[in-house]
Amino acid sequence: LTSRLPHVGTTIFTVMSALASETQAVNLGQGFPDFECDPSLVDAVTLAMQAGHNQYPPMPGVPALREAMAAKMQALYGLSVNPNTEITVTAGATQAILTAILAVVHPGDEVIVLEPCYDSYVPNIELAGGVVVRVPLTPGTFRPDFDLLAAAITPRTRALIINSPHNPSGTAWTDAEMQKLQSLLAPTDVLLISDEVYEHMVFDGLQHQSAARYSGLAARAFVISSFGKTYHVTGWKIGTVVAPASLMAEFRKVHQFNVFTVNTPMQHALAAYMANPAPYLGLSAFYQRKRDLFRGGLASTRFKLLPSEGTYFQCVSIANLAVPERDLPEGEFCQWLTREIGVAAIPLSAFYGDGFDQKVIRFCFAKRDDTLLEALQRLGRL
Amino acid sequence: LTSRLPHVGTTIFTVMSALASETQAVNLGQGFPDFECDPSLVDAVTLAMQAGHNQYPPMPGVPALREAMAAKMQALYGLSVNPNTEITVTAGATQAILTAILAVVHPGDEVIVLEPCYDSYVPNIELAGGVVVRVPLTPGTFRPDFDLLAAAITPRTRALIINSPHNPSGTAWTDAEMQKLQSLLAPTDVLLISDEVYEHMVFDGLQHQSAARYSGLAARAFVISSFGKTYHVTGWKIGTVVAPASLMAEFRKVHQFNVFTVNTPMQHALAAYMANPAPYLGLSAFYQRKRDLFRGGLASTRFKLLPSEGTYFQCVSIANLAVPERDLPEGEFCQWLTREIGVAAIPLSAFYGDGFDQKVIRFCFAKRDDTLLEALQRLGRL
Ligand SMILES: CSCCC(=O)C(=O)O
Ligand SMILES: CSCCC(=O)C(=O)O
Repeated sequence: LTSRLPHVGTTIFTVMSALASETQAVNLGQGFPDFECDPSLVDAVTLAMQAGHNQYPPMPGVPALREAMAAKMQALYGLSVNPNTEITVTAGATQAILTAILAVVHPGDEVIVLEPCYDSYVPNIELAGGVVVRVPLTPGTFRPDFDLLAAAITPRTRALIINSPHNPSGTAWTDAEMQKLQSLLAPTDVLLISDEVYEHMVFDGLQHQSAARYSGLAARAFVISSFGKTYHVTGWKIGTVVAPASLMAEFRKVHQFNVFTVNTPMQHALAAYMANPAPYLGLSAFYQRKRDLFRGGLASTRFKLLPSEGTYFQCVSIANLAVPERDLPEGEFCQWLTREIGVAAIPLSAFYGDGFDQKVIRFCFAKRDDTLLEALQRLGRL
Repeated sequence: LTSRLPHVGTTIFTVMSALASETQAVNLGQGFPDFECDPSLVDAVTLAMQAGHNQYPPMPGVPALREAMAAKMQALYGLSVNPNTEITVTAGATQAILTAILAVVHPGDEVIVLEPCYDSYVPNIELAGGVVVRVPLTPGTFRPDFDLLAAAITPRTRALIINSPHNPSGTAWTDAEMQKLQSLLAPTDVLLISDEVYEHMVFDGLQHQSAARYSGLAARAFVISSFGKTYHVTGWKIGTVVAPASLMAEFRKVHQFNVFTVNTPMQHALAAYMANPAPYLGLSAFYQRKRDLFRGGLASTRFKLLPSEGTYFQCVSIANLAVPERDLPEGEFCQWLTREIGVAAIPLSAFYGDGFDQKVIRFCFAKRDDTLLEALQRLGRL
C-alpha cells in the first residue's frame, strides 16, 4: 500500500501528551484546559438529550445555533450573516478546514500557508491534490511579510490560509496587517481560509481582527471558530464556518459527505448557552491573568519570553539556558524537558515543513493555577 | 468558482425531511428513529461530562470504547482485534468511509460501488481523485452478481465498497455470497470497505455476515459500524472502523487531520453502555416486530412488498397502484406522496448515478408504532 501521506506520522500533540502521561510530567504541550467547563453548559446538554434532541439535526446545523452565531458575528465583527445559507456547524475547526479545502481546491491548485502553521493544513492540501506553497512569517517576530506573500501569489493560487491569533507563536494580526492583506488580495480571486479558533483570547487591550470585519476579505473567506476552545470543552469537537453563500454551497456539498451532521444535543446546549455573551467576552481577561502568572514565573529563569498577544500559548527561546541540552534539536529538547524536568512542551520545529529549528518551544497556559505553579517550580530548576 | 462536485446537490434525505416537516407528513423518508434512546445512555453521558471527560480524547478514541468494540468483534464475529492499532472511533460511519477512501485511494485508482448505493460513496471517491466503477446489483432482487463484479476488477482497482444489510434494498448478504466474494478477491490486492451500519438489524433468523468473519476479507477490510443506528441516537454521530494495523495506520493519518478526535463524553458513555450486550443482541427482534407490523399493514394495499431481510427499511413497488401518479418518476411520486397522501418516502433512483427508475420507493420503519399505524392509514387511501 502506497501512502497518500508518506511524510505524516502521529501528530506532535499526541506524541507529547502520551509521553507526558507516561512520565507523569506536567502537560503544557497539547493545547487543552485541565480545568472544568461551566457546569451549566453540562446541564444544558443533559436537558437537550432529555428533551429528545438525539437524532440527526439539519445538515448545516441546529438552526438556533446558527442564529446565535450570526448574532455574534454581527455584534462583534459587524458582519451580517444569513444563518440559513452562510453558516455551517462542523465537527470542530479541523474538520472545517479540511472540508473547505476539499470544497475549493482542485488538483494542481496552489494553496499558500504561512509558516510556522498548524500541522493539519499541509496534509489537508495534499489530500485535495493541491500544491502547498510555504511562505515564512518574519523570523523572530512571526509577523506577516507582505512582500514575500505578494511574490507567492500566482494565477494558480486558489487559497491562502491565515491564523490569528496565531498558533504556535501567540501573535495577533493588527488592523493595519489585515488592511494590507485586503489590499493585496483585492485584485486577485484568491480565497481566504481564516482559522480564528483563538478569537476570544487576545490580551493587553488588543482587539481580534477577524477577517469578518473586512468586507473585501469576508467576501472571499471561510471564517472558522471553535466552541471547544472558547468554552473549555475541546473534546466536544464542535465548531462553525461562516462564508458567503456561494462558497458555503460548495462547502456543504463536501460537508454532507464527510460528517453529514454534528452532535445534536451539544448543538442545542451551545445555542442556549450562547444567549449569554459574558463567557466569551470575559475569556481574554481570564486567560490574560493566567498568561501573566506564567510569564511572571518564567521571568526569573533563563528562558527568554516571546510576546504572547493572544491564544493560550507562550513561546520561549531556550538558547540561553545554562544546560547543554539547549543545543539539542527542539524536539529532543522537549523530550528531555518532559522526562528530566517533568514539563511537556511542543517544539516549534513541528510547525515547519523543513523542521526549521530556532530554539523556541511552546507552552500551553490553559491550566489551573496550581498546575502552572507546579510547572514553574520545575522549570525554575533550569 | 468551479465546483469539485458539480453533480452534487442537497442529499435526498435532507430534501425529503424538509418537505415532510413543511407539509406535516409522516416522515418515513430519512432513516432515523422517532422514539427515544435508553434513558440510561443519556445518564451515562451526563456522568461522563460531570466526571470531567470534556477534553480531547486520544486521537484513535477512548481506550475503553475501543476495548469494548474489540470484545464485541471477537464475541460476535470471531475476529481478534487489537484495540490499540486496529480500531478507531469516528464521527459517524460517513466520516469513516470518506476517511478510508482518502487514506487509500490515489488519483486515478478505480473504486467499485454496487448500485444502488448510499449517496456519499460516489462523491467520496471523486474527492479522492478516484475513478468510480459502478456495478449493478441484480435488478429486482438486489443480490450481488459475481460475474459482473469479476469483470469490473482491473489492475487499477484499489477498493470495493459493499454494504450489508443493504441500504436501500434491505437485502442481507448470505454466507455463500461472502464466501464467493472472498474467493473472487483472493488473487487480487483489492481493498474492501464494508459498510455494516445495520449489522444488528437482521430478520427471520438470518445472521449478519460481517466481513470480519472471513479471514480473507478481514485482512483487507475496513469494517464500519454505527452507534447511532444501533442505539437510536443518529444525532450523536459516533461510529467505529476496524482494519488491520497496516491499513489503520494510513486511516489514522487522514483521520487526525480530518476530525482529529471524536466527542469525548459520549465515547465514555458508550463504552460503559456496551458492557451490556442485550441492547444490540435484542435489536433484530425489536425491529423485526416493527417490520412485520408495517408489512402487515401494507399487505392489504396495492403496494408490492419487496423482501426486507435487514436494515430498518422496507422497499415497495408502486407499479400496481391504482393512481396515475404511479407513472411519475419515482422522485416526483415521492413528492406527491408526501404532499397529497402525507407520507414521506425516498425514491430508489436517488441511489443510482443515472437515476435508474424501477418504480420502487423506500420507507423507514424505525418509528413508534403509532407513527407506523398513522402512515399505514394514510397509505391505505391508495
Ligand atoms: C488537535 S490537538 C492539538 C491542540 C492544539 O490545537 C495545539 O496544541 O496546537
Ligand atoms: C445521513 S441521513 C440519511 C440516513 C440514512 O442513512 C438513510 O436514510 O439512508
